[in-house]
Amino acid sequence: MRTLEFDPNAWTLTLLDQTRLPRETIFVVCRSVEDVAHAIRSMQVRGAPAIGVAAAYAMALAARASSGDLIGDLEKAADVLGATRPTAVNLQWALDRVLAHARSGANAASVLALANDMADEDVAVNRRIGAFGLDLVPEGANVLTHCNAGALATVDYGTALGVVRAAHASGRGIHVYVDETRPFLQGARLTTWELQQAGVPLTLITDNMAGHFMYRRKVDLVVVGADRIAANGDVANKIGTYSLAVLAHEHAIPFYVAAPISTIDLSIPSGHAIPIEERSSGEVTHIQGVTIAPEGVEAAHPAFDVTPARYVAAIITERGVLRAPYTESLAKAVQAVDQLVA
Amino acid sequence: MRTLEFDPNAWTLTLLDQTRLPRETIFVVCRSVEDVAHAIRSMQVRGAPAIGVAAAYAMALAARASSGDLIGDLEKAADVLGATRPTAVNLQWALDRVLAHARSGANAASVLALANDMADEDVAVNRRIGAFGLDLVPEGANVLTHCNAGALATVDYGTALGVVRAAHASGRGIHVYVDETRPFLQGARLTTWELQQAGVPLTLITDNMAGHFMYRRKVDLVVVGADRIAANGDVANKIGTYSLAVLAHEHAIPFYVAAPISTIDLSIPSGHAIPIEERSSGEVTHIQGVTIAPEGVEAAHPAFDVTPARYVAAIITERGVLRAPYTESLAKAVQAVDQLVA
Repeated sequence: MRTLEFDPNAWTLTLLDQTRLPRETIFVVCRSVEDVAHAIRSMQVRGAPAIGVAAAYAMALAARASSGDLIGDLEKAADVLGATRPTAVNLQWALDRVLAHARSGANAASVLALANDMADEDVAVNRRIGAFGLDLVPEGANVLTHCNAGALATVDYGTALGVVRAAHASGRGIHVYVDETRPFLQGARLTTWELQQAGVPLTLITDNMAGHFMYRRKVDLVVVGADRIAANGDVANKIGTYSLAVLAHEHAIPFYVAAPISTIDLSIPSGHAIPIEERSSGEVTHIQGVTIAPEGVEAAHPAFDVTPARYVAAIITERGVLRAPYTESLAKAVQAVDQLVA
Repeated sequence: MRTLEFDPNAWTLTLLDQTRLPRETIFVVCRSVEDVAHAIRSMQVRGAPAIGVAAAYAMALAARASSGDLIGDLEKAADVLGATRPTAVNLQWALDRVLAHARSGANAASVLALANDMADEDVAVNRRIGAFGLDLVPEGANVLTHCNAGALATVDYGTALGVVRAAHASGRGIHVYVDETRPFLQGARLTTWELQQAGVPLTLITDNMAGHFMYRRKVDLVVVGADRIAANGDVANKIGTYSLAVLAHEHAIPFYVAAPISTIDLSIPSGHAIPIEERSSGEVTHIQGVTIAPEGVEAAHPAFDVTPARYVAAIITERGVLRAPYTESLAKAVQAVDQLVA
């Protein structure tokens, strides 16, 4: 199944619980906005594109539950959903899109139809990202990735892992180094699981091994996803991305970001203005329920970091591969999409 | 107690089991060379200086167990102990020192006396490292450290944490960012525990957060230990050290290595020749007994990496703070110690 699926008969959104993978394949059934908000907050569903689409479906649930003031109820729902995770802009993008639709006259069925369209679009967008990214992956390449920007972070296929899937499917004979991605272990738990199922050869490494393998010339390129891209090309993504980008730069290894146009936030001039979510220190001091630090130790947990545009070799989108100067290339790509939508 | 203590009445070496900290304070009692070799292999005792002294005590146990051919039996014991962990040179240095002593006429009691001297020397050396390192720590500094180069990695006081202890004791008002240090979590489990007991303010971070905090100007200096330093100043240390050194360089943050002269291996011209121990992939795919990756996933586990000398701002030793060109400063420092010993 897809990472998230809506049942139009039962009016329920079913999510694959990503906090339990790979040990257990458990599904979460959401019946209300609050159910979906909880699933996003607790990272049962995560990844910028996936939470955007989950939020759109939550808006359909809100529309269905509305007893009269549809716009007012949807605005309230958007406030709840928008507050769940501050860094990924796709969430706000999805909510704004549903609200705009609602204001032009809508009902629960039409909001659901829009959410379904957004889910299908996401898969199509990812396949285009994969196709464009393919040109950047040499024969026999060793690709390093961080976190999970795969099918599990989207509706299906993935962004960074979309590029990996496309390269693998076209017989490039690639191998992937998967950063485990502490503290939440998206790499160790989710990316390995996806790549294993797709038959892509991989090696799991701890995050702090990346430099070592780059120094030994074992890495040909890095590709990661993004949670928000500022107008100047600065990229917010999972904590640890910035360190990787610096290491790649030091070793003259291209560092690519794969993300849909909806991740680009032209309202924000640079990465300095991107809000960085601080999560619980307990997610650092405990791993899968096991305590790893002494009682009373303080831990920091910025969930994301910002990679300045100068470290980014290219941004792979569904509208093509964008390069510096990003202020121009990003604005042009966003405008092209706006024209298509309008 | 010290990290390791020898009981001259029972002829036993007692070690604080570092695989169980901080959850349990358990002691391992070693009665034979094989007991000590097992403790080193399984990392119940770890840290280059600590395993050197543990090996010296194991040689005393071998001497005591010898039924006649003392030199032959000590050579056999040295072979077993020397094969336990290939990267740290202090182990071989300690074994060579005991063998040289034995060849000049020795018995079990005199080997034990030598091991006791080496243990006491280690503490004195660390205090001198701390005193020299103090000059490099500004008032109110935020210090970042990796792994555990503390009392637990030595007989007492520590090398990198010796510098931290000295700065804290002299009222510099420092704060320490502690890298958790996957996969073995020496930072999360051991360094936090030591610093907490010493009352040094600390924040635990995952390894991949270091770049983020450097970018935000939260880190004033990095200080780490070393397992082997080549003649040109290249430093082998816990996996992840190299990434930190590159990040520190990018942010113009001084990167210091604190280590005794016994860590310097002039027989090796550069880091390329330092053997890097490969440990079990199970130490990556499991954390404290909990599986974090799907069944059948391959994981890499180089236990150390090499930091080229050009990233090292200074090497803090018991003979002073050594700086580039290291080929000259290291040779001079080693020669000075050889003259003292001779």
